[in-house]
Order: sequence, then C-alpha cells, then structure tokens
Amino acid sequence: MKVLTEYLKFHTKTHRAYVHITPQIESAVKKSGVQEGMVLVSAMHITAGVYVNDNEPGLIEDIDHWLEKLAPFDKNYQHHQTGEDNGDSHLKALLIHHEVGTWQQIFYAEFDGQRDKRVIVKVMGE
Amino acid sequence: MKVLTEYLKFHTKTHRAYVHITPQIESAVKKSGVQEGMVLVSAMHITAGVYVNDNEPGLIEDIDHWLEKLAPFDKNYQHHQTGEDNGDSHLKALLIHHEVGTWQQIFYAEFDGQRDKRVIVKVMGE
Amino acid sequence: MKVLTEYLKFHTKTHRAYVHITPQIESAVKKSGVQEGMVLVSAMHITAGVYVNDNEPGLIEDIDHWLEKLAPFDKNYQHHQTGEDNGDSHLKALLIHHEVGTWQQIFYAEFDGQRDKRVIVKVMGE
Repeated sequence: MKVLTEYLKFHTKTHRAYVHITPQIESAVKKSGVQEGMVLVSAMHITAGVYVNDNEPGLIEDIDHWLEKLAPFDKNYQHHQTGEDNGDSHLKALLIHHEVGTWQQIFYAEFDGQRDKRVIVKVMGE
Repeated sequence: MKVLTEYLKFHTKTHRAYVHITPQIESAVKKSGVQEGMVLVSAMHITAGVYVNDNEPGLIEDIDHWLEKLAPFDKNYQHHQTGEDNGDSHLKALLIHHEVGTWQQIFYAEFDGQRDKRVIVKVMGE
Repeated sequence: MKVLTEYLKFHTKTHRAYVHITPQIESAVKKSGVQEGMVLVSAMHITAGVYVNDNEPGLIEDIDHWLEKLAPFDKNYQHHQTGEDNGDSHLKALLIHHEVGTWQQIFYAEFDGQRDKRVIVKVMGE
C-alpha cells in the first residue's frame, strides 16, 4: 500500500473564507502514484471545514449567508465564558463537516480565520 | 489489497427523491470478496447526497420536509444569476453530505433530479 | 495491511448525551500497530452520531441547544405513526453525521439514549 501525507497551510485575510483547494489535492494524488485508492482531506481545526461543491462565486455567497442564518454569530454562547467569541464558528463547522474523501471541487471553509491553520491530505492505495 | 469500483446510475422521476440503495452496496461488497475493509459510497454530483437512516416512509417524509425548512427553495439565491434555479438543492446536499462509508440502510438523496446522475461505490480491503 | 476492529458500547443515563471517546480511539490505534492509515469511527445506530470538536462543557451545551433549535422535539413527525416518538433524534443525527475518520477530540452524540448502543472503530493501514 502506498501512503502520501501532505499538509496544506492557511492563514485567511478574512474571518470567514472559502478557499478552492482542488488543484492541491489533485497534485497530491499525482505525486502519490496511487492508481486505486482514497484521499482523505480533513481540516485539523474545529472551527474550519472541508466540503465539496461548485466553484461559483454566487453559490459561495449563498452558502455563507445560509450558514450565518442557521448558525448565527451571537454574543451569548455558553462557550464564550471561556473568553472565546467564536461559538458560531464551531457550529458552522459542524454543519459543513470537516472532511471529504472524493474528487469534485473541494473547498477549505474557514469560519474563524486570520490565524494559522492546516488541512491534512492523505492519499492511500496502490 | 483488493479494490472494486462500481457506479450506480440514477435518473429520478421527481425533482427530489430518496432511493434505498443498500442492496446494491451489499452486492458490490460481496462481489469484491473483501472480508476486512471499507466501502466509500459517494454522490458524484453536488446537488445530491448519500445518507444512512431508517427505511421508513414517514421518516423519509419528515426528512424531506425538514430539509425544505432548513434550506428552502427560493428564487433569490445569488447562484441563480448563472441561469440555474437549484440554489436550494446545493444547500440541501451540504446538509445531508454526499458520502458514507458504512453498513446500515443507505439512501441516495436526489435534490435536483430528472436528469442522469451517478454514485460511486468503492470497496477496499483484504 | 493491518486491520483492527473494535466496538464501543454505550447506554447513556440521559435521553441526549455527548460522550468524549478520544481516549478509546487512541487506545485502538495504539493496539493496532498501524503507523500509516485511517480510522473509521461510526455510530451503528441512526439516532446517534460521531463528531469532532472541543471538549468544553459550554460548547457542548451550545451544540445541544442549537441541535434542538434546528431539529426540535415535536409530537407531529410522520415517523411517529409507527409508534416511535424519536423523529427529532433521527434529524439531529443527520445534522451531526455519524462518522469521522480523524484525530481530534472525538465525541459520541446520543440523541435517543437510555438503551444499548454501539460504535464501531476500524483502524486500517500499515
């Protein structure tokens, strides 16, 4: 079995961001030499996610708006008693989920950005 | 390592549909001869999903009603400026997620049907 | 390829519960001897889920409150015509999703507890 592990690094300029990462994943798969197998793409932080969808700016705007509706920013999360103010980021990440193993347009979804974060990419197979 | 890849094809008669696909997955696993491993079942389109739950008609109706509540059909998604009218289908698919790797009752969830679509089934193991 | 399969058993005291299971997963990985591979952690019931997030009591309270808002307990689900009263548990589990394959803080999320349930843990790799 062949295994290749790579880490993608992010430090978004905005608090929320949706970064298209399909090219990096394709490059990792090519580099691995795996012909038959799976790729795991997983956010290594619990206020970020990885999802699969169209790379269409209007849709990304719709997704962002919709996530804010279902998991709104709010000063009053219990989690904020720890000094954090990113309760909504945790909930948004739960909605989006934090990993995919597939081959469509892949995005890194940042819900608490402006700091260093990583995604792990693991290609396994033969 | 043994790997078997199969594609399931769908062309639903309705715009939204929930199709029970456990038998097809079990059949792929059997055909693969894999005794220990995993199955990836992944929708190859971003307006469809794959999920695991009970095969009970009332529950499927509840799920459909609930998805329409959380990600409603709406004429005003930004995505519709591209000429599409399926913004809600993308959001419903994000909620349901598009892949599972497991062995309960498995469903193909169509949110923008009446066209050709596929699911990939990949069995890997020994 | 090495494969280790273990089952975690749960019987929560409350109807809903969030159980931190990272130590059990780490222990399974260690026992497997796998150095490079993946772990699948999957709830074997469709009214429970597995998710990854912080082990912070306030946040767990926020998550529970939020799930109840998005998928509320309600007497009138169609599914209840079967004699069940756990329609909301099914929807909450769909939101949380029922499996992860990763290495952060892992939780078993029970949405219909006070009965025997299991999680499967499968470590695969070399």
